[in-house]
Amino acid sequence: MSEFKVIEIKKNILEDNDREAECLRGELKENRTFLLNLMSSPGAGKTTTLVRTIEALKDRLRIGVMEADIDSDVDADTIAKTGVRAVQIHTRGMCHLDADMTRQGLESLGTEDLDLAVLENVGNLVCPAEFDTGAVKNVMILSVPEGDDKPLKYPLMFSICDVLLINKIDVLSYFDFDIDSCVARVRRLNPDIQIIPVSSRTGEGLDAWYDWLYEQVQQWNR
Amino acid sequence: MSEFKVIEIKKNILEDNDREAECLRGELKENRTFLLNLMSSPGAGKTTTLVRTIEALKDRLRIGVMEADIDSDVDADTIAKTGVRAVQIHTRGMCHLDADMTRQGLESLGTEDLDLAVLENVGNLVCPAEFDTGAVKNVMILSVPEGDDKPLKYPLMFSICDVLLINKIDVLSYFDFDIDSCVARVRRLNPDIQIIPVSSRTGEGLDAWYDWLYEQVQQWNR
Repeated sequence: MSEFKVIEIKKNILEDNDREAECLRGELKENRTFLLNLMSSPGAGKTTTLVRTIEALKDRLRIGVMEADIDSDVDADTIAKTGVRAVQIHTRGMCHLDADMTRQGLESLGTEDLDLAVLENVGNLVCPAEFDTGAVKNVMILSVPEGDDKPLKYPLMFSICDVLLINKIDVLSYFDFDIDSCVARVRRLNPDIQIIPVSSRTGEGLDAWYDWLYEQVQQWNR
Repeated sequence: MSEFKVIEIKKNILEDNDREAECLRGELKENRTFLLNLMSSPGAGKTTTLVRTIEALKDRLRIGVMEADIDSDVDADTIAKTGVRAVQIHTRGMCHLDADMTRQGLESLGTEDLDLAVLENVGNLVCPAEFDTGAVKNVMILSVPEGDDKPLKYPLMFSICDVLLINKIDVLSYFDFDIDSCVARVRRLNPDIQIIPVSSRTGEGLDAWYDWLYEQVQQWNR
């Protein structure tokens, strides 16, 4: 049946992709470019967080951004207004980026003069978690309105990330979201993950995120 | 390359699936069971809306629910407390349900005594839009905190749905969400879609949704 076929093919694709991702990471290391893979549900605040992050770090790091979307260029427009280089990747219906698509994006962006390249992945908590893009670190955003039960439902995504930003804490009082329960659920899946509550609208909590990212880029590029 | 392989296989799978979905719909028509496919991003309010809908209609319709998730049984627990029959479908990493998986779910649920079967699909705006589940109607929820630009980014999902519920309008004043812009973007993709602004927390606007659904079930099952 079709279900079986999909799974079989997926296994080969995942193995090919893992090799391709390791190869890409090696090249990035050699070129001293740090690649960050940013993931979340639709509307959790990836672009807003990224604009803030660029504003905070662009005087210290040379930054470029790849915006991946099924369609539309609205996010690349927003990023380009910050003054950093941005490219839009249209996935033509694909629900995630793999290492080969990421490589094509990096080639189009040009990385020789970049300290930090950011991939804003497709808004999706399922598929992007399965494909290593070749990024040095994976970061996800969970926003308060989505609910504190999401680690129970999308465990792979929470397991493979190095940092979780819990975003939209400025509206915490309007939603039933228990940060302690959420943190406990995430830690059960991933004891080493950094968890940083933030509001990308007000800026609250973001300094810890900027510091973490700057330190990581420095370590990788030294 | 792997990208090309995926697309080729996907085309065959989609064609097989379309046939399977039509076949399932024919059987549902014969059995006088209406199948509703409910989709959204993670945390947009599918389960909360469904609980309200069950409470409103369960005296007039015999309802059963299939909860699809990568993992966990939290939603099936919540639905079972309303007193209707519920089954949890674990997709083992799959990001959507196809018609064959939906058929397995319906067989496990048992439909012979049901007027309305609801499939709560995996929280994802990308992949579930590509696979016809065999449902009579597709309904999606977009929640205010996700932003009014989502129709630009996930056009297929907005194109294939019969109803869009714009949820969490009780928190509209805390977010930059322009309902008129959102509606205009959706109508450009799908002129015939019904758009109903609601709050599944307060109940505001839901009567129009209950009326639409009840009428659809009556028409299908007559």
